[in-house]
Amino acid sequence: MTWWEQPDDAAYGLATLPYGVFSCADAPSRVGVRVGDHVLDLSEVALALGHEHADVFAAPSLNALMDLGPQRCREVRAWVRELFVDDTYQQLVERQLRRVTDVRLQLPFEVADYVDFYASESHASNVGKIFRPDSPDLPPSWRHLPIGYHGRAGTIVVSGTDVVRPNGQQRPGPDGVPRFGPSSKLDIECEVGFVVSGSTAPGTSVRVGDAGDHLFGVVLVNDWSARDIQAWEYVPLGPFLGKSFATSISAWVVPFEAFAHAQVLLPGQDPPVLPYLQGQTDRDVFGLDVHLEVRLNGSLVSAPEFRDMYWSPAQMLAHLTVNGATLRTGDLFASGTVSGASPDTYGSLLERTWNATDPVTLADGTSRGFLEDGDVVTMTGWAPGPDGTRVTLGEVRGTVTPARGTGA
Amino acid sequence: MTWWEQPDDAAYGLATLPYGVFSCADAPSRVGVRVGDHVLDLSEVALALGHEHADVFAAPSLNALMDLGPQRCREVRAWVRELFVDDTYQQLVERQLRRVTDVRLQLPFEVADYVDFYASESHASNVGKIFRPDSPDLPPSWRHLPIGYHGRAGTIVVSGTDVVRPNGQQRPGPDGVPRFGPSSKLDIECEVGFVVSGSTAPGTSVRVGDAGDHLFGVVLVNDWSARDIQAWEYVPLGPFLGKSFATSISAWVVPFEAFAHAQVLLPGQDPPVLPYLQGQTDRDVFGLDVHLEVRLNGSLVSAPEFRDMYWSPAQMLAHLTVNGATLRTGDLFASGTVSGASPDTYGSLLERTWNATDPVTLADGTSRGFLEDGDVVTMTGWAPGPDGTRVTLGEVRGTVTPARGTGA
Repeated sequence: MTWWEQPDDAAYGLATLPYGVFSCADAPSRVGVRVGDHVLDLSEVALALGHEHADVFAAPSLNALMDLGPQRCREVRAWVRELFVDDTYQQLVERQLRRVTDVRLQLPFEVADYVDFYASESHASNVGKIFRPDSPDLPPSWRHLPIGYHGRAGTIVVSGTDVVRPNGQQRPGPDGVPRFGPSSKLDIECEVGFVVSGSTAPGTSVRVGDAGDHLFGVVLVNDWSARDIQAWEYVPLGPFLGKSFATSISAWVVPFEAFAHAQVLLPGQDPPVLPYLQGQTDRDVFGLDVHLEVRLNGSLVSAPEFRDMYWSPAQMLAHLTVNGATLRTGDLFASGTVSGASPDTYGSLLERTWNATDPVTLADGTSRGFLEDGDVVTMTGWAPGPDGTRVTLGEVRGTVTPARGTGA
Repeated sequence: MTWWEQPDDAAYGLATLPYGVFSCADAPSRVGVRVGDHVLDLSEVALALGHEHADVFAAPSLNALMDLGPQRCREVRAWVRELFVDDTYQQLVERQLRRVTDVRLQLPFEVADYVDFYASESHASNVGKIFRPDSPDLPPSWRHLPIGYHGRAGTIVVSGTDVVRPNGQQRPGPDGVPRFGPSSKLDIECEVGFVVSGSTAPGTSVRVGDAGDHLFGVVLVNDWSARDIQAWEYVPLGPFLGKSFATSISAWVVPFEAFAHAQVLLPGQDPPVLPYLQGQTDRDVFGLDVHLEVRLNGSLVSAPEFRDMYWSPAQMLAHLTVNGATLRTGDLFASGTVSGASPDTYGSLLERTWNATDPVTLADGTSRGFLEDGDVVTMTGWAPGPDGTRVTLGEVRGTVTPARGTGA
């Protein structure tokens, strides 16, 4: 029994309790938790109750909370849940609830390093077919390691931030001179991101079975991509300006432990992976049953399933650190585009429209190969929680605004 | 006339005056400036003189100083120089000098995003020949844009930090199973890095001619590279674990204005570059006459010349932002390996020993294809200053320590 009443399948119920950072007219940025259509000001509640870690909720990012470590973070989550269960807290909590429409949501944490993986076999294979039609679909190392690269941490923005169409060089025309101007192949990538807490020592690595010690939470990620800029620049050092202009993440970080009921077996890895990518047991190497939806101007254009991913989050973290690279609180790694076997589960327009050769039709009757100025992209997601409840992910939303003149 | 007496060509004379962060037994981390074999505690001097920006010198990083902006940073540099010219300051300054051997040098700034370019034609061409013998030496876009990628900011370490040999996957043997273990092709890359100050708005870009507004200073960079890990992982998203374990930078950041007398014309760009990579005048697009030296266990193994680079620092910055990506104080971009036309100017062992087929012989009679455990790599550099003086860069030094067991 809880005093907080909400249908089991309602968004942001007590199975989710995600953390975010918000500000409003009368208060600077601080940590809150989302319940239904409201944000609870954890800073004020913790202060009123004399919580021993009240200071971490008064901070303008989740980094201090994350630095408490996994055990204390579990205790904090249990305490937050208790606020909505024990009716002795009801009056205090109700006084500190704000409508989510009345607050300004901020980037929830200071991003340290950002790594993006490429963990969907369908996505990697589709991109191979489109970008490298004369080569095998998958690079030789693809089934042996989760391929990844570093993205730009400084251009990670919170859901709701407009995204300016990037300018850049594109493949030369017949005159041999590279084209230059606004990207005409602006795309999305629907991904799931994992927020890291804690640090490691140089030269050490995180075992698959210990990944949970560093997996603080989950966000949705839209890895905006300019396919024409990317195609011209990416050999041999990988994507750079085709990606670095903006990456949007959801304002709410869902604690990793909320996904305890969403663990599923991976689709299968063949050939077998090297020992450092194996767990002690199958339970160590699990996927997540997260259902995703991508909407373009309100029309559903794709419904990727995260359970289709070839590599697991724990394997990604083990790989990222196997060379002894250190972790820092605030590191973010994302899965790469989530794409399933059929076009209606492809998580990018590049795949969904097969490089604009098979456009999608929207509810207003218009069609899209890639994004137009003014387009609004919204990604949402959910996973099963305990007892028929849902864990709510997202949303991550962004509006495309026109390119600026160069030199502006 | 200055009261500070030193030969014109001595290291760290008044033409250099680089900033760093140091600590010692009786004092927490703070900003200092290097002169000869000494560090001047700018925090104490500024406090004693009531300098209006005394607080930025008491900080444990240069970021606050950089945030003062280019005009105030010029004024600060002029003030620092005056401390060694006007003998009314002599007594105060002498009291606040520490021997550099008596202090602990720290990472001089908080690294925001780290980008590494690939701006030496000789290096790119050599790597192409070695890694991709069946393809053209240079990728198609190479002469049209400065190719670059994001590296791991969290593993940038200050000169003197040991570097643990990385573990990782390497190309499969005849059984088709990837090899795994310590890299046996651990390499160096001698580079010049540029420290960025100030921020930009999303969607805007920095013009070549305005790059000076954001170029705070210069460091030497050793971009440690595990060639066997890199070769197996880098298609199609670029280098990842082959680089992310460690990147060393010098403890001293030399203000960009110190290089006013080191500006040289680029070797020449053909075909002509797109307008956004051109300056208003030739003066906007300049190279730097920086002489570099790479020593392995004390033996000189290479002497790269930065003036041989195809792309200029201002062009790199203009390219990095042309897609509207924002800058932050503390961003670092490096040039990529500096290699000239002849083997004794190749800035990596991969090139210098042609993938270990032509090892270098050291003073102790041993030879190296790649690095062995215990090897000490030291990079230094200098550029011409005014009136026959020298601007001192570096050093950046690191010792290779053995790989740790996996799962350690």
